[in-house]
Amino acid sequence: MSLLNQTIAAIRPLDNEAAWAADARLNSLTKPPGSLGHLEEIVRRYASIRRDSSASFTRGAIAVFVADHGVADENVSAFPQAVTVEMLRNLSNGGAAICVLARRFGYALKIIDVGVRTDTSATPLRDVSYRRIGAGTQNFTSGPAMTHAQATRALETGIEVARELAGSGASLIGIGEMGIANSTSAAALLSAITEIAPDQIVGRGTGLDDAGIRHKIEVVAHALEIHRDTFESRDDAGLAILVALGGFEIAAMAGVCLAGASLDIPVVVDGFIATAAAAVALQFYPRQFEHLFFSHRSSEGGHALVLDHLKVRPILDLDLRLGEGTGAALAMNLIESALDLFHHMATFAGAGVSDKIR
Amino acid sequence: MSLLNQTIAAIRPLDNEAAWAADARLNSLTKPPGSLGHLEEIVRRYASIRRDSSASFTRGAIAVFVADHGVADENVSAFPQAVTVEMLRNLSNGGAAICVLARRFGYALKIIDVGVRTDTSATPLRDVSYRRIGAGTQNFTSGPAMTHAQATRALETGIEVARELAGSGASLIGIGEMGIANSTSAAALLSAITEIAPDQIVGRGTGLDDAGIRHKIEVVAHALEIHRDTFESRDDAGLAILVALGGFEIAAMAGVCLAGASLDIPVVVDGFIATAAAAVALQFYPRQFEHLFFSHRSSEGGHALVLDHLKVRPILDLDLRLGEGTGAALAMNLIESALDLFHHMATFAGAGVSDKIR
Repeated sequence: MSLLNQTIAAIRPLDNEAAWAADARLNSLTKPPGSLGHLEEIVRRYASIRRDSSASFTRGAIAVFVADHGVADENVSAFPQAVTVEMLRNLSNGGAAICVLARRFGYALKIIDVGVRTDTSATPLRDVSYRRIGAGTQNFTSGPAMTHAQATRALETGIEVARELAGSGASLIGIGEMGIANSTSAAALLSAITEIAPDQIVGRGTGLDDAGIRHKIEVVAHALEIHRDTFESRDDAGLAILVALGGFEIAAMAGVCLAGASLDIPVVVDGFIATAAAAVALQFYPRQFEHLFFSHRSSEGGHALVLDHLKVRPILDLDLRLGEGTGAALAMNLIESALDLFHHMATFAGAGVSDKIR
Repeated sequence: MSLLNQTIAAIRPLDNEAAWAADARLNSLTKPPGSLGHLEEIVRRYASIRRDSSASFTRGAIAVFVADHGVADENVSAFPQAVTVEMLRNLSNGGAAICVLARRFGYALKIIDVGVRTDTSATPLRDVSYRRIGAGTQNFTSGPAMTHAQATRALETGIEVARELAGSGASLIGIGEMGIANSTSAAALLSAITEIAPDQIVGRGTGLDDAGIRHKIEVVAHALEIHRDTFESRDDAGLAILVALGGFEIAAMAGVCLAGASLDIPVVVDGFIATAAAAVALQFYPRQFEHLFFSHRSSEGGHALVLDHLKVRPILDLDLRLGEGTGAALAMNLIESALDLFHHMATFAGAGVSDKIR
C-alpha cells in the first residue's frame, strides 16, 4: 500500500469519550459553566483528536512549504516570481513574520522547499529542508499543473514532514506556505471544490489593483473551464484536482492534514491557501475537518464565504492575509492558552468556592 | 485640583506623527502592504497612544478589582454572594483563570479589594491590595449605590493603581473584575449611557435561567426608572451615574482608563463589565476610547450591540464571558505579538526582497 493510502487507512474517528471527560473537568473549574466559550470547545476537540482526556500538550511545530507556480507567467501577482526564492532566504535568515512568531511562542519551525523555481540546494540555505518535487508547477492555463506522480509525491512529502514533526514530539502542527501566485492556484482549487464562482473567491493576493483582480478572475475561470472534465465526478477527485490546478506546497499541506489525522495530532490551518489544502484533504477523507483547527478568517478574496460554505468557525478574525502560517501560529498560542487554563485553574472543590444556587 | 480632575486635565490627544512613522516602518517590512490587517492598526494606535514611533513594549500588567454589590439581594445572580470573597481567595492563591494567563504571558497581576462584603484585611490575603471603599455597594433598587465621596474615591483608587503600575514599568494595562451581581450594575450603566433598552443588554451573568434573566431585566428597568433624574442631562453625568448604579470595581476600572490616557499607557478593556467602566470613563473625557483597546466581543447579554453602538472593534471574538481580565490578557498577548512582528521582521531592503511590480 502506498504511503498515502496507508495514511488515510490509519485515520480513526474522534475519541468522544476523551471530549466528555475533558468537559467534566471544564465544568469543575472555578468559572461559570461554559464561560470560556469557544476556548472550551477547543479543549474538548483537542482532547478528542489526541484521544487524551488529560489534553496534554508537549510541543507546537509549524511547517512552511515553499514553491513556485507556472501560472505566475499570467501576471496574476503584484510581486515578481523572484520573491519566492528571496522569501525562502528571508525565512532561512529568520526575518520573515512566521520566524518572529515561532521564536516568540517557542514553536519548532520547519521550512521546506518543495519546488522553488531557483534551486538553492547546491549551497543549502540554513534550516531549509530540500524536498523538491520540481522547479515550480506548470502554467495551468495551458495544461495540467503537475503530473500524477508529482501530486502523489507532494502529498507524501507533507505526510513525511508531519511524521518527522510527530517523531520529535509535536502535539500540534501549524501549516503555512509561501509561493508567488499561489493564491491563484488556491482560488481555482477552492472554486472547483466548493463550486463558488471565481469572482466570489479570487482575491488581491499580495496586492493587485482592480484591473489585476479582474484579470486574475479570468485566468481562474479559464483554467476551471479547460480542466473541469479531468476531475469532476471522479473517484480520485482529490488527486485529479491537484494535478490540474494545484501547487506543490498546497499538496504537501494537504498531506500534513491527512497525516495529522492519522497520527492523532491536530493540524492548525492558516489562511486562504492553507484552507485550499484542507479542502483538498477533505476529498481524500470526508471527516478530515474534525481533525483540524481553522486559525483565522482571512481578508483574502472569498475566504469568509468559503469558511461558511465549509461550515467551520475560525478562531481569529483579524483581516490577516500574509500567509506563511502566521495566523496558524497566533491561533496555536490561543489553543495552548486554552489548554493552560484547563490544566492549571483551580476546581470549585479544591478552592472552596461555592457552586451555583439556581 | 482633585486627583480626578488633575488626571483628566493631563490627557493629551493622540500623537498622530508616531502613528505615521510606525506606518512607514510597517510598509517597509517583508510582507505585502497591509497584510497583517488589524495587527497593523494595533501597532499604529499603540505608537500614537505611547507617543513613541518605535512602539517599544516594556511590560504588561493586569489590574483585577474585586467588590460586592448590594443589588445581589435581589436574586440577580446564579451564584451566592459569598463567591466574591471565595474568588478573592482563589485569585490570591493563583487558581483563578486570570492567574493562569498572567503567569503564562509574564504579566504582573495586581488584585485589589475595593469593597468585598467580607473584610479579610485583618489577616491579609497574599498578593491582595486592600483599598476598600466600603463593604459592598448599597442595593440600588431602593436608593443610590454609593455616595459621591465613595464614587470619587473609587475612581481615584483606579487612578492610583494605574500610576503605581506605570511607576513599575508597565507599558500596557489590562483591566478586569470579579464581583457577584456586577453584571446587573454593568447592564444598568450601559443601558443608561447608550440608551439601549435593558432587555437588549441584560445577560445571564454567571448562568441565570430564563426566569432569572426576566427578573434581572425588571430589576435593571426599575433601577433606571427611579434613578434617571439624578444623572440625565447633568454636567457631572459620569459621577452621578456611578453614584446611582455603579460598583466600586467598575468605578476603579473607569479610573484606570482615565489614568492610562493621562500617562500615555494603552488600557485594554476586558468584557461586558469592563466595557461599562470604559463607557463611564467616556463621560469624563469624550475622546477616551482612542486610548483604549477593546479586547473581545463577549457573549454576555448585549455586549455585541453595545460595542457596535460605541463604534469599537474588539480584537477577539471567542464567546468568552468569564471576566477577571481573561479576555484582556489574551488580547494583550496579541497586541504584544503585533509589536514583536513590528520590531523583529526584516525589511525589504535589509533582506534583499523585491518590492511590488504593479
